[in-house]
Amino acid sequence: MASVAIQGEMGSYSELAALRHFGKPSIVRYPSFAEAFKSVGREADYGFFPIENSIEGIVTQVCDLLLKGRLKVVGESVLRVEHCLIANRGVPISRIKTVYSHPQALAQSRKYLESLGVEIVPFSDTAGSVKMIKERGMMDSAGVASEYAARAYGMQILRRNLETHSHNYTRFLVVSRKANKAAIGRAKTSLGLVTRNVPGALYGALGCFAKNRVNMTYLQSRPVLGKPWKYGFYLECEGSLGGAGLRSAVRELRKGAAGINLLGSYPAARSRYG
Amino acid sequence: MASVAIQGEMGSYSELAALRHFGKPSIVRYPSFAEAFKSVGREADYGFFPIENSIEGIVTQVCDLLLKGRLKVVGESVLRVEHCLIANRGVPISRIKTVYSHPQALAQSRKYLESLGVEIVPFSDTAGSVKMIKERGMMDSAGVASEYAARAYGMQILRRNLETHSHNYTRFLVVSRKANKAAIGRAKTSLGLVTRNVPGALYGALGCFAKNRVNMTYLQSRPVLGKPWKYGFYLECEGSLGGAGLRSAVRELRKGAAGINLLGSYPAARSRYG
Repeated sequence: MASVAIQGEMGSYSELAALRHFGKPSIVRYPSFAEAFKSVGREADYGFFPIENSIEGIVTQVCDLLLKGRLKVVGESVLRVEHCLIANRGVPISRIKTVYSHPQALAQSRKYLESLGVEIVPFSDTAGSVKMIKERGMMDSAGVASEYAARAYGMQILRRNLETHSHNYTRFLVVSRKANKAAIGRAKTSLGLVTRNVPGALYGALGCFAKNRVNMTYLQSRPVLGKPWKYGFYLECEGSLGGAGLRSAVRELRKGAAGINLLGSYPAARSRYG
Repeated sequence: MASVAIQGEMGSYSELAALRHFGKPSIVRYPSFAEAFKSVGREADYGFFPIENSIEGIVTQVCDLLLKGRLKVVGESVLRVEHCLIANRGVPISRIKTVYSHPQALAQSRKYLESLGVEIVPFSDTAGSVKMIKERGMMDSAGVASEYAARAYGMQILRRNLETHSHNYTRFLVVSRKANKAAIGRAKTSLGLVTRNVPGALYGALGCFAKNRVNMTYLQSRPVLGKPWKYGFYLECEGSLGGAGLRSAVRELRKGAAGINLLGSYPAARSRYG
């Protein structure tokens, strides 16, 4: 049985996605992404972390930990996010005065929550808000989290599909100490890139991919610590590091870039939104 | 006297930066970026918003509001971020048990706060945490905010320069209903870009800048709402929309891109870090 490190409380979206991806893993929970990253290869075989959400965009902490760390990306997974309003059993929706959740979940449910006329209070965690409401027996409060969180804490769902935008997906990466070695069918590859400090450097770097017919699927710039207004890039592209096109692109990249960090190839997640 | 809309409580880093940029503006404060954006051209002449921090990176809400809105960028400003530990007068550091602040300020001060052995509690706002500690007369708590926040609330600074990384700068943009028309000396230009959904589209777009010797200084990808895994880009480059190079680049961009949004040209902020 694989052990998988995640960030968040019992019942989190990460936990739900990890269960779906791995079947029945042993989940090891950490309060912060940094601690969860550290545990990979020690307390846990894998880490399972959100890299981007289709509404909020990049999860910067995870991106930065990947770029500066030594872990390899070995898998990818997509979860549809469906927010529920969750309260203690027996509490009717009319008694809810305060709603707690992670700021992003609150923002995504704002239209509905405003129609309820409740006080909206940011909390560190979606599932954590449900846990607090249960533990403290708060009878005039609700949390915003997944159906899975409601079940995990034996709580009542007052309303489903709170989110304003239904196209709400989070994409997760599976990381490990060791890169995938075997050939992968429909592969994707992640890498980190720091360009030289000259005009047109990023254009030149992207040219290495284009000329080798490697399709880039994601590009994210991140600040370089201690060097204000200097940027590194997190990239994903189609194909595997074992393939001829990407191999040739990386060879050319090495000549021009200030730094390159091959994060690994992995099977692309099947898209779950049609 | 110019009126300037900002997000945050009295004493926020935004307010401090706006005062330095405008001299003596009339500040209009809003709890959210969305409300502050809406007020520009109505309750306020200008908006003044953080676009990126040299450690945390992009401020996604501001970037998204710029990309989907109709406001123009007319200025830029850089503030050195210096976090202080702030408490009620007469409270010694040895009595502090709990420290409140915005999660980013807490993360940036984590090393020092952990050495204090206090409980670290996320709060919506840096200056807001100081306000709460004052209003509630909390004598065993401190906030993390600027020296300016301490002065704004008449509070005591227990310690300065909490931040782990001293190269901590936030870059702000000035926005207005109307674009700058006059010629600008050392100009920068902001634009939004949505590429066509074909391989190499971003490479092609960046080529329009490179071929016209326009130096790109910032590139940020953002999700397109309702279209998972499709991205728009926020770009900044050197030069003005009135200049020949950028004018020619934009002309070429229009042919290949799915959408382009000229956000305006403005004087580049003088770098304040040497």
